[in-house]
Amino acid sequence: MKPTIRDVAKMADVSISTVSRVMNTPESVVESKRIRVLEAVEKLKYQPNSFARGLIYKKSFTLGLLIPDIENLYFAGVIRGMQDACIKLGYSLMICNTDRDKNRLLSYIDNFHEKQVDGVVFASDVLYPEYYEKLVGCRIPFVLVSSHSDEFDVPCVEIDDEAAAYDAVKFLIEIGHQEIGMIGFNHNDSISGPPRYQGFVRALTEFGLERNSCNIKYAAHRFEHAYQAAHELFTDYPELTAVFCVADEFAMGTISYLKDRGILVPGQVSVVGFDNIRMAGMFVPKLTTIAQPTYELGYRAAEKLHELVTTGTVEIVRERMNHKLIVRESSREK
Amino acid sequence: MKPTIRDVAKMADVSISTVSRVMNTPESVVESKRIRVLEAVEKLKYQPNSFARGLIYKKSFTLGLLIPDIENLYFAGVIRGMQDACIKLGYSLMICNTDRDKNRLLSYIDNFHEKQVDGVVFASDVLYPEYYEKLVGCRIPFVLVSSHSDEFDVPCVEIDDEAAAYDAVKFLIEIGHQEIGMIGFNHNDSISGPPRYQGFVRALTEFGLERNSCNIKYAAHRFEHAYQAAHELFTDYPELTAVFCVADEFAMGTISYLKDRGILVPGQVSVVGFDNIRMAGMFVPKLTTIAQPTYELGYRAAEKLHELVTTGTVEIVRERMNHKLIVRESSREK
Repeated sequence: MKPTIRDVAKMADVSISTVSRVMNTPESVVESKRIRVLEAVEKLKYQPNSFARGLIYKKSFTLGLLIPDIENLYFAGVIRGMQDACIKLGYSLMICNTDRDKNRLLSYIDNFHEKQVDGVVFASDVLYPEYYEKLVGCRIPFVLVSSHSDEFDVPCVEIDDEAAAYDAVKFLIEIGHQEIGMIGFNHNDSISGPPRYQGFVRALTEFGLERNSCNIKYAAHRFEHAYQAAHELFTDYPELTAVFCVADEFAMGTISYLKDRGILVPGQVSVVGFDNIRMAGMFVPKLTTIAQPTYELGYRAAEKLHELVTTGTVEIVRERMNHKLIVRESSREK
Repeated sequence: MKPTIRDVAKMADVSISTVSRVMNTPESVVESKRIRVLEAVEKLKYQPNSFARGLIYKKSFTLGLLIPDIENLYFAGVIRGMQDACIKLGYSLMICNTDRDKNRLLSYIDNFHEKQVDGVVFASDVLYPEYYEKLVGCRIPFVLVSSHSDEFDVPCVEIDDEAAAYDAVKFLIEIGHQEIGMIGFNHNDSISGPPRYQGFVRALTEFGLERNSCNIKYAAHRFEHAYQAAHELFTDYPELTAVFCVADEFAMGTISYLKDRGILVPGQVSVVGFDNIRMAGMFVPKLTTIAQPTYELGYRAAEKLHELVTTGTVEIVRERMNHKLIVRESSREK
């Protein structure tokens, strides 16, 4: 038989209303009792049904997700993973698209507060102090996905961007490329821009190719920007035979530019992308890329937020997932 | 100065509580008063602040969106449009991804009911009787976007799929193609499958090319399925010089198949897509396609739902928006 709130109260040797208060206003319960209740919940694997939960805990059983760009396929995987975890854990998911607009993001937080979401996942963007303060001010627990904060102590799930970039560039070097360039994210407003650049430089340095480390142009988040950056890159460094792009969309923009210039990919230039969005395997040529486990990142982020919401803390603050190099058609031995 | 609920009551010559009841339980107010209040709201452009609204109207000021596949870029445009309209109208948006799973969809409706969303937009899928009955049973107002129902009288916003397909095929005929095939949606589980096929047949018939009307293979919603369908199409009809695909992703799958076979696009075969997703202009070659106004469809759907939620009815039940043929690189004169 499924355990009830009575069973929890009995095991913890407290009243039913104390169990309810622990879930609802934990700060109103002395620590010793609170710990006993949480231990009993855990031991009994107590899972109240959602109707009773709503009455007892005054929770909304809704999580919020803030993403910077719904048109970026990277987030489709994160959303699917997060949504499946939410279904498993009994939450609904409210997805909001910020378009990287600070005011819009702040007003979504107000909105989440008004709707009493139990927690928020903040995806892929820089956690500016005003965001942090607003979330903390509204007492909304939150975790970061594909992001982290050096400034604040916030739980996060991400890959090792430095190591992933290193692997991509090392691969290009090992198949014989000596003249390598990069299309990166602007460093000032991007969370993964600096570590991916560091990975690029580390691989070059390790193989004595430091002279390549200035062969870089920056782009904002879109195909068109990467197309333009590729134009600048090949204007300044026409000798390049390989380009590491920090996003699949950048790789597509770069390949599109090279095609318009009559330069063959991979015949004359190899291009490596990043993310392994669904389109990477559909492009012509199919992209060699660093695969991020987007579904798993979203899934873990929801689980971590659930852990934070229900226990007030998380076991692993900064969690790293594995990336993987996938070799397809856009790269070739030199 | 912004009008208040007092101003509305004064203009309508009713009490403040009557105004509140009109917004909250309109059926409890006699029609003559109700109409006066709604007219006053309209004339004064009365916009209560969201906190007061929540207290007065017992509404959640949240709309739900049901989409079948978050990984399909078609929906990114719809979501952005809907989200912008929601911001303008003072709603938050709860997006749910059904993965075309009936049970998941039905449980999302329960969820919407529990969260008391004010209304739901149902995107691109067939409105099966069980969905209709569930929504009506939960008393949730809803509208369809990129879909319609012949069976039920539900407000919708969509394009004219028959005319759009006709335009695509007519274009191919006018640039000289006589051997034309089609990759379509399965008819039994798709809302736009049948009318797009009818448009294909109408264009062929008009130009005396009816013999082409069997040159069709069907695919589910993904690139891989279209790749396979293209394989079957060209195995059965190797003489084809043009293919009309009912989705850009199908066009990409078809082009990818032709490339793997060593057949040039557009050199030997012209391919026309449908939707004009963001990727259409990024593909190699860039797709000739039928553009749908995805952003505007989403925006109008939210406005229409707002109209339905606030007035109980909509002026135009079945609203049609314009499509447009965009000629890029994947088609060429024969």
